[in-house]
Amino acid sequence: MLARLKKTARLIALLLALPVGALVAFAVYVVISIATYEQADDGVHMASKQAYLQTLAAAAKPKNAPDVVIILFDDLGHGDVGFMGSRMIATPHMDALAKNAVVMENYYAPSPVCSPSRAAMLTGRLPSRNLLTAVPFPSGHFVDRINRLFGNPVRLPREEIILADVLKASGYHTAMVGKWHMGDHDKSIPTEFGFETFFGTYHSNDMNPFHLVEGTPAQGEKIAVAAPVDQTQLNGLYAAKSEGFIAAAPKDQPMFLYLAHNFPHVPLHVAPHEHGRSDAGLYGDVVQGLDDTVGRVVAALKKRGTLDNTLLIITSDNGPWWQGKGVGRGRKGQSFEGGVHVPFIAHWPAQLAPRRSPALAMGTDLLPTILAELNLPAPDDRLLDGRNLASSLRGGASPHDVVYYYGAGTLMAVRDAKYKYRDAKPVVYATDPVSIPIWPKKGPWLHDLTSDPDESYDISMRHPEVAARLKAALDARNQEMAANPRGWK
Amino acid sequence: MLARLKKTARLIALLLALPVGALVAFAVYVVISIATYEQADDGVHMASKQAYLQTLAAAAKPKNAPDVVIILFDDLGHGDVGFMGSRMIATPHMDALAKNAVVMENYYAPSPVCSPSRAAMLTGRLPSRNLLTAVPFPSGHFVDRINRLFGNPVRLPREEIILADVLKASGYHTAMVGKWHMGDHDKSIPTEFGFETFFGTYHSNDMNPFHLVEGTPAQGEKIAVAAPVDQTQLNGLYAAKSEGFIAAAPKDQPMFLYLAHNFPHVPLHVAPHEHGRSDAGLYGDVVQGLDDTVGRVVAALKKRGTLDNTLLIITSDNGPWWQGKGVGRGRKGQSFEGGVHVPFIAHWPAQLAPRRSPALAMGTDLLPTILAELNLPAPDDRLLDGRNLASSLRGGASPHDVVYYYGAGTLMAVRDAKYKYRDAKPVVYATDPVSIPIWPKKGPWLHDLTSDPDESYDISMRHPEVAARLKAALDARNQEMAANPRGWK
Repeated sequence: MLARLKKTARLIALLLALPVGALVAFAVYVVISIATYEQADDGVHMASKQAYLQTLAAAAKPKNAPDVVIILFDDLGHGDVGFMGSRMIATPHMDALAKNAVVMENYYAPSPVCSPSRAAMLTGRLPSRNLLTAVPFPSGHFVDRINRLFGNPVRLPREEIILADVLKASGYHTAMVGKWHMGDHDKSIPTEFGFETFFGTYHSNDMNPFHLVEGTPAQGEKIAVAAPVDQTQLNGLYAAKSEGFIAAAPKDQPMFLYLAHNFPHVPLHVAPHEHGRSDAGLYGDVVQGLDDTVGRVVAALKKRGTLDNTLLIITSDNGPWWQGKGVGRGRKGQSFEGGVHVPFIAHWPAQLAPRRSPALAMGTDLLPTILAELNLPAPDDRLLDGRNLASSLRGGASPHDVVYYYGAGTLMAVRDAKYKYRDAKPVVYATDPVSIPIWPKKGPWLHDLTSDPDESYDISMRHPEVAARLKAALDARNQEMAANPRGWK
Repeated sequence: MLARLKKTARLIALLLALPVGALVAFAVYVVISIATYEQADDGVHMASKQAYLQTLAAAAKPKNAPDVVIILFDDLGHGDVGFMGSRMIATPHMDALAKNAVVMENYYAPSPVCSPSRAAMLTGRLPSRNLLTAVPFPSGHFVDRINRLFGNPVRLPREEIILADVLKASGYHTAMVGKWHMGDHDKSIPTEFGFETFFGTYHSNDMNPFHLVEGTPAQGEKIAVAAPVDQTQLNGLYAAKSEGFIAAAPKDQPMFLYLAHNFPHVPLHVAPHEHGRSDAGLYGDVVQGLDDTVGRVVAALKKRGTLDNTLLIITSDNGPWWQGKGVGRGRKGQSFEGGVHVPFIAHWPAQLAPRRSPALAMGTDLLPTILAELNLPAPDDRLLDGRNLASSLRGGASPHDVVYYYGAGTLMAVRDAKYKYRDAKPVVYATDPVSIPIWPKKGPWLHDLTSDPDESYDISMRHPEVAARLKAALDARNQEMAANPRGWK
């Protein structure tokens, strides 16, 4: 009796000990994982990156090199600016630029989400190339802790080459003002990627903590204004920092400014006296404030005397989110047009005649295009997915047969000049209207964007040959990506 | 030692027994709940319903009473028909009717979801009045079992009075063809609500089992075609049944036909020879097939000789779902315009001159309007939320200061002729693009639908007086509803 009781008690104790033991072991693993987390650099490609940048530095500097300014908005919609048809939001500064610029009417952000879109634009490589297929959270945030636990760095790897690396090596004076959002640890910070000065924020304005950071490569990056930041002053502060950089930039050296606004990403804020200036509520007020910053940058470039020979690009990282007016169906986070089809201006009077171009273009094209315009070699250790738009900007056809709709890391759809083909369920993020499991079929979905810009009707049964052609393009892209995810040569 | 061991073993046994016991108790509760589930009729209002219907039956019959035909589509979008601007889908039969009809351009389905919308339209009462604020699943389906477990009948209570009850009592020969979707148990079936014949389905065409059911009050309702139903034949079958009813209807008696199609709700099907007839894929083919059924009903009415004096209403239960072209932002399931702003024709040559009316109207207006047109008294035991559109149909103003956007049981928004005010987060169903908890604020959201039909910009800070006025209307509606949910007098 006693023996049986003892045996039973032991068995019960064992049964209880197993899950408790497993939990303890897991906790130990978690603690060790977080404590020891570090992502090593890819030594081979860090070296080949440095070799490429040294080649650029050693080469003859581009003659009559233009200043380069990229102004990127966060979640600005296709229809939120006067030059794309808004009658509710006045954007006179951008409209004036657009009249003298190339407006690419079929320009696509590389991803419908912030960080992958930015990384792809700055590297000229599709979102999944650099592993940054999610949105970084501030170090220490619980999402960041979970990411580390699962060994997911969520940062731009240092071996990636961004536009600032290239331009700095080619003799440019470089600065970034605004939102980075490609990591805040393991040196994935702006001044480690070719920016000689940085003033801005590492993360989105809806993330906590939200600091303003300032830095140079020599001194490192440090918190300039600790959270909570007064977001009503953000636009003005960024404009002033941009003006200051332009005014102080040496006259005998080309300069590159990357002004990446935090707005109109939510939460929305304007200075008290700016309330009610637009007909589109607080969102419109914010966008009109952003247009003011464009005016101030343009004025600073005029003062510097280089506006005519400045390649000034204005665009958005993805479509509008809660508010804002997109194009067609869908919004930020979606592979519908509204997620990625955004406004795009390239203003460069010395080189580009004003026009509205229907040519297909992607954010990944910026780096290859600037390389081409400056007559610089591309890196030879890695693929660039983007194409040179030099001809399209001058009235030529698009270099793209198709453009790609990546939902961060997954290829969702492709389009050519007329048709859009979706293979996967059009689901990327929680803001997707169709992110529930009863979407009636995976695919194919084929839309004629010329007659059906809202993607209302699947015509794949009517045009199976078109669906097959675009599916082949999509499959080829997926196969190439699977065979060589990072695109190393 | 032995005593302590015994005590410990007992404690462990007790700890283990507690959750097991709770589970067993819950299982017993579940089994008993399901086995004994029944929803009793509301005897008081069953009696007052019968008294009202007897009053109608005893009253002098309306003179020169028109035939009444309502054709309801399932998930048809605002832009899916020629008379609302489609250039991809040919709907010649409906377009011809629209030319000679009143087209209400600001007509709102009472709910962005099937069953609450239908119940509200047929009863003239807002969705939450009748407790049918969800979508019924077939008896025995696991969702139905869960509903029963929680004592939620999900069916139209029998004490509700629907249009067929009224018209039958007033001397009409009545029939329903098509989708009921207001319950399949406790006698919540068409022939218990005034329909003298029924041929159709109790549920959506994406639910299992999907039977075709046939019935009369005398013989009850029985499965006519067991699942799986050949959905490629559904439109043709419904058209033939409608033709048959109209042809057989006595000439000396007015008749009422409620033809409630299952399409273009997914899954989409057309007869093999109908593939590829539209420019809008299978969805367009389906809608063109639906237009054919309208043509066949019109031809049957001509043959009967009553087309001129038939009030023929064509509309949709809510906005388009996965495919289909809605109006403005959003789709089925959402309180955005795309969820409820649907096409509406009232064709009645003997009484209504052709016009396009901007007057606000709701599905709940149909019953009060038909009561008024036929000079019939309203029930005196209950509130009708709908208004009489008789004047609007003849060029007069809307009887509504505001119309209401109910997400099934919850009031989401109100609009007047110009502004739309949303108080709650615009979340109803999983198809909502904003159904995640990070929607930045609950409200208010104010949109000027004349300048911002896509609901892109919240202007509540700019027009606080408008927001306050519409919030007051919304709050008043909520208070009235809370004070008397069922609207009994």
